[in-house]
Amino acid sequence: MVLEMIRKENDIKKLNEEQIRQLADEIRRFLIEKISVTGGHLASNLGVVELTIALHLTLNFPEDKLIWDVGHQSYTHKLLTGRKEGFDRLRKYGGMSGFPKRKESDCDAFDTGHSSTSVSAGLGYVAARELLGEKHTVVSVIGDGSLTGGMAYEALNNASRLKSNFIIVLNDNNMSISENVGGMSKYLSGLRTAQAYTDLKRGVEDTLKRIPGKGDQIVNQIRRTKSGIKQLLVPGMLFEDMDITYLGPVDGHDIRNLVRVFHEAKRVDHAVLVHVITKKGKGYPPAEENPSRFHGLGPFDIETGEPKEESGPDTYTQVFSKVLTDIARHDDKVVAITAAMSDGTGLNTFKKYFPQRFFDVGIAEEHAVTFAAGLAAGGMKPVFAVYSSFLQRAYDQLLHDVCLQNLPVVIAIDRAGLVGSDGETHQGVFDLSYLSSIPNMTVMSPKNRWEMADMLRFAVDFPYPVALRYPRGGAYEGMKEFRTPIEYGKSELLVEENEIAVIFVGHMAELAADVRDGLKERGYACSLVNARFVKPLDKEMLTRLSENHSLFVTIEENVITGGFGEQVLEYVSETGLEVSVRSFGISDDYVEHGSVELLRKEVGLDKDSILDGIIKSLKSE
Amino acid sequence: MVLEMIRKENDIKKLNEEQIRQLADEIRRFLIEKISVTGGHLASNLGVVELTIALHLTLNFPEDKLIWDVGHQSYTHKLLTGRKEGFDRLRKYGGMSGFPKRKESDCDAFDTGHSSTSVSAGLGYVAARELLGEKHTVVSVIGDGSLTGGMAYEALNNASRLKSNFIIVLNDNNMSISENVGGMSKYLSGLRTAQAYTDLKRGVEDTLKRIPGKGDQIVNQIRRTKSGIKQLLVPGMLFEDMDITYLGPVDGHDIRNLVRVFHEAKRVDHAVLVHVITKKGKGYPPAEENPSRFHGLGPFDIETGEPKEESGPDTYTQVFSKVLTDIARHDDKVVAITAAMSDGTGLNTFKKYFPQRFFDVGIAEEHAVTFAAGLAAGGMKPVFAVYSSFLQRAYDQLLHDVCLQNLPVVIAIDRAGLVGSDGETHQGVFDLSYLSSIPNMTVMSPKNRWEMADMLRFAVDFPYPVALRYPRGGAYEGMKEFRTPIEYGKSELLVEENEIAVIFVGHMAELAADVRDGLKERGYACSLVNARFVKPLDKEMLTRLSENHSLFVTIEENVITGGFGEQVLEYVSETGLEVSVRSFGISDDYVEHGSVELLRKEVGLDKDSILDGIIKSLKSE
Repeated sequence: MVLEMIRKENDIKKLNEEQIRQLADEIRRFLIEKISVTGGHLASNLGVVELTIALHLTLNFPEDKLIWDVGHQSYTHKLLTGRKEGFDRLRKYGGMSGFPKRKESDCDAFDTGHSSTSVSAGLGYVAARELLGEKHTVVSVIGDGSLTGGMAYEALNNASRLKSNFIIVLNDNNMSISENVGGMSKYLSGLRTAQAYTDLKRGVEDTLKRIPGKGDQIVNQIRRTKSGIKQLLVPGMLFEDMDITYLGPVDGHDIRNLVRVFHEAKRVDHAVLVHVITKKGKGYPPAEENPSRFHGLGPFDIETGEPKEESGPDTYTQVFSKVLTDIARHDDKVVAITAAMSDGTGLNTFKKYFPQRFFDVGIAEEHAVTFAAGLAAGGMKPVFAVYSSFLQRAYDQLLHDVCLQNLPVVIAIDRAGLVGSDGETHQGVFDLSYLSSIPNMTVMSPKNRWEMADMLRFAVDFPYPVALRYPRGGAYEGMKEFRTPIEYGKSELLVEENEIAVIFVGHMAELAADVRDGLKERGYACSLVNARFVKPLDKEMLTRLSENHSLFVTIEENVITGGFGEQVLEYVSETGLEVSVRSFGISDDYVEHGSVELLRKEVGLDKDSILDGIIKSLKSE
Repeated sequence: MVLEMIRKENDIKKLNEEQIRQLADEIRRFLIEKISVTGGHLASNLGVVELTIALHLTLNFPEDKLIWDVGHQSYTHKLLTGRKEGFDRLRKYGGMSGFPKRKESDCDAFDTGHSSTSVSAGLGYVAARELLGEKHTVVSVIGDGSLTGGMAYEALNNASRLKSNFIIVLNDNNMSISENVGGMSKYLSGLRTAQAYTDLKRGVEDTLKRIPGKGDQIVNQIRRTKSGIKQLLVPGMLFEDMDITYLGPVDGHDIRNLVRVFHEAKRVDHAVLVHVITKKGKGYPPAEENPSRFHGLGPFDIETGEPKEESGPDTYTQVFSKVLTDIARHDDKVVAITAAMSDGTGLNTFKKYFPQRFFDVGIAEEHAVTFAAGLAAGGMKPVFAVYSSFLQRAYDQLLHDVCLQNLPVVIAIDRAGLVGSDGETHQGVFDLSYLSSIPNMTVMSPKNRWEMADMLRFAVDFPYPVALRYPRGGAYEGMKEFRTPIEYGKSELLVEENEIAVIFVGHMAELAADVRDGLKERGYACSLVNARFVKPLDKEMLTRLSENHSLFVTIEENVITGGFGEQVLEYVSETGLEVSVRSFGISDDYVEHGSVELLRKEVGLDKDSILDGIIKSLKSE
């Protein structure tokens, strides 16, 4: 096993060419085996095995800085920097993260998780290096999918004026998570198949040279005219136009050639983009054939590629998918938008039936939201389905383009609350806070699958902005007996008693019911209330409950600051209601990776912790 | 007066060519006269007089949709759509907005105010038009400055696949608010001076044609090869590469030619970019010479171009500028970043003395924040100076790139709180909320000019993320006698009594002192506390105050939801302190334009409103 010889960073440099080839095979097998057990990101990691090896043969760690965009493709990098043992507990609570983490290794230069940040961060490192008079190499690896994000372009625009080396590796697999979109993608396709063009270019040059007397002169003139005709002679003129040297395209699975090009790139005295063509899922046929399904996945059977987990009840995503498709069947004005997540958000069904009304805008949440605002202003009913943590990218657009104009845009916020193994960067625990402070915004969250359906129908018909927030995973099938119609701003009183009122947001339903049971066991009378609307608050209900309850307990899977509980508290305080409020949510810290169940215990969002908290606060009064 | 003949939209079409020329002159004079009295955006509006006229000659309102990026250049559009009388109360409370507003006119297709949104919104309108089977024209006007924002690129990337007409007008004045930056800017410069290139292109073509036998064939081959050599024959290949037809460059002050090109653009069956060259400040020499100073300004003397307002005390911006420059003189690691606002944020002084450590990244707040994170990770002490409302663009980057890694980045938040005449889109009243819910973030705000200096010094030396929030306008010179050293997380007890504690955030100092005076007059004992830190809360102080106070009054110029007051309330509730809390801030709505003084009354952040509120809540207990 050559892989056994890699104990720490730079060990790879001791290997000979044959061993390096073998290493690539071993890493691939290792990744497939490990991920088939733990789950994780497979296809993207299989695609960059040789690319990562070539970078490690070119760079010195930890002196040189290597920044992975998004970072879910950093597994080989982790292997080559002494973290092989970590793969047994990959993405498990307390185990190794599936993303680069500075606190995990000093070979991880920058924590990532969201798209399109690596060039900005790399530029920061380069500027620091120059000002501090240091000499190391800075490399940002960015996928072609990430290049659809505007931030990446902002950074390229700034990279253009660099006076020192900065290597941008464009890892081009012609995919983001699913298929890629837009002009840039098409442009890159052109480069990938640029051989014909290169031949034509040579042909033109040769022909020009053969013009008697003036030919050489013309070719030289063309070569000299930097801002004019250069693109005739150089592929990648889009980058060259921005003063970023373009090298490539290079076969991303040819280590020797990659190393040669990286050495060439290191000699450039400004920004240089190396265009590397890789194959997502490379070396594992099921992943090559279906890279989207093998992007991020749970444990699977290596032979068949089939998932090992039994399918449970429908997820909220599936309910969303079915219901939205049904709504669209009866309402021509409904359109759906995704930011490169048609699979993950369940919009692929919508896409199948209504391709004209479906828009995948690339990894471009900012554009998505303002585009939705434009659609709404133009008379449509847009639904933007997006993961909670990615919607953070479009906070200003929500505030400024949707809500200021009070336009009927539905934001379907998937993966809200704790998401589990993806960790800090993917937990959707801020949305209730950042959405609640936006005027004109309505925020809802369903308690179970039926309410999900009802709320989605309500949202699509609502004539103003509305956010519908639901979690990752199986849709709750309990509380089926409670299905009163959704009314704007009205909560749902599930059990009416007195003394304590447990008021929960959305998928905290089951936990809230458990907490209520615990309180009943301890002899307290206890009402159970489904908030339904986080914004606006159901003030009438709160006032009414205050008449015969002495304590409100709020439960939400969101940070406490700015969340539902604080809004209840503010109302109680403002109106002087005679009731105490105890809010349970996530305290002021990032939440790591791990199973959602363990994480809930960790943050105190489990039955015992909440009961303890309530009892304690009752005793102190 | 031809201008008198324009009573409503489309009236302009009745004018003859001579009258139209005269109209342009009259509009220019009108704008200079009006803005010299009311203040407003001058240079950008003078630059687009002919462009707007040409658009109005080409389009039908309100059927056709015209979307202005940022929107501060829409004055001529307002004049041509029957809003001439509005200029007497431009940007005044209750008067006409300085930006497009759908509720002001149905000729305003989309509200704008922040940069780089117009292409996204336009694409939304186009998609809606196609789905609804409508026939109107959609035009988005975007400046070259706005093109440095990533969102614009996200939108262009999506525009590329359009199968129907969409006109993007690139209003290129080679400026954003101040000078422009980056590769795109350089690229556009190349296009502007493309004449030589065009000649060369013709030369090559002619030469090729003259090759005996094969010449014509080669030229045709080149013309056919769409993705390959097209750029040889077409300027604007960066756009063409993205399948957006490029027309231009066109002289933006030649109405007849503009109209011709717009008609040509209307015939294109996909996205088309018209590159229009304009001169910022055109026709008014002081503005032509100094477009940056005449971007947005107060009343001025038409003869001299000098501002009419007497200069008051230093603004917070000036204090920031001076102190940061002084800090940088003694600390090599301090670097400063602006997103196209070196004048507005006061960083021009820093730039003058430390050009190597100064970075203007263009209108690219997202990149700016992650770039700062990279700089910090690389060992520097970056200070990003930005207006509060623009920082909204970088919420995810703060949360994800700066605070998750706990990197020492200083965000100097200028124009926080109410900003006045720019209105809804520029009020900085959300930052305390969206910043407070981010883990690892520290949020401070100074009460006066001296504390501003002390806090900035503290922030630069603080080893973790910190946001320093200060308002537009003159730095308060009262309370000079209170200048205890800044201690992390510690508030400042200015006056210690009992009964009521008035706790204020930053520039609410003067108002808070007035409120305290009012309470004293009414016979209440009253302490006065400067919060200094909005995050973390000074819990020790709150606990201590609760011992001999029965009411906490919090005052902040921020929305109440998620703001300082709610956090105080949360702490009081959580710990069961025996004290009531009454929060004063901005209620859940957007705040229009007008003088800050009037706006404060409007939102209830004035002495009388707050005293009334306090007295009422005291009586109800």
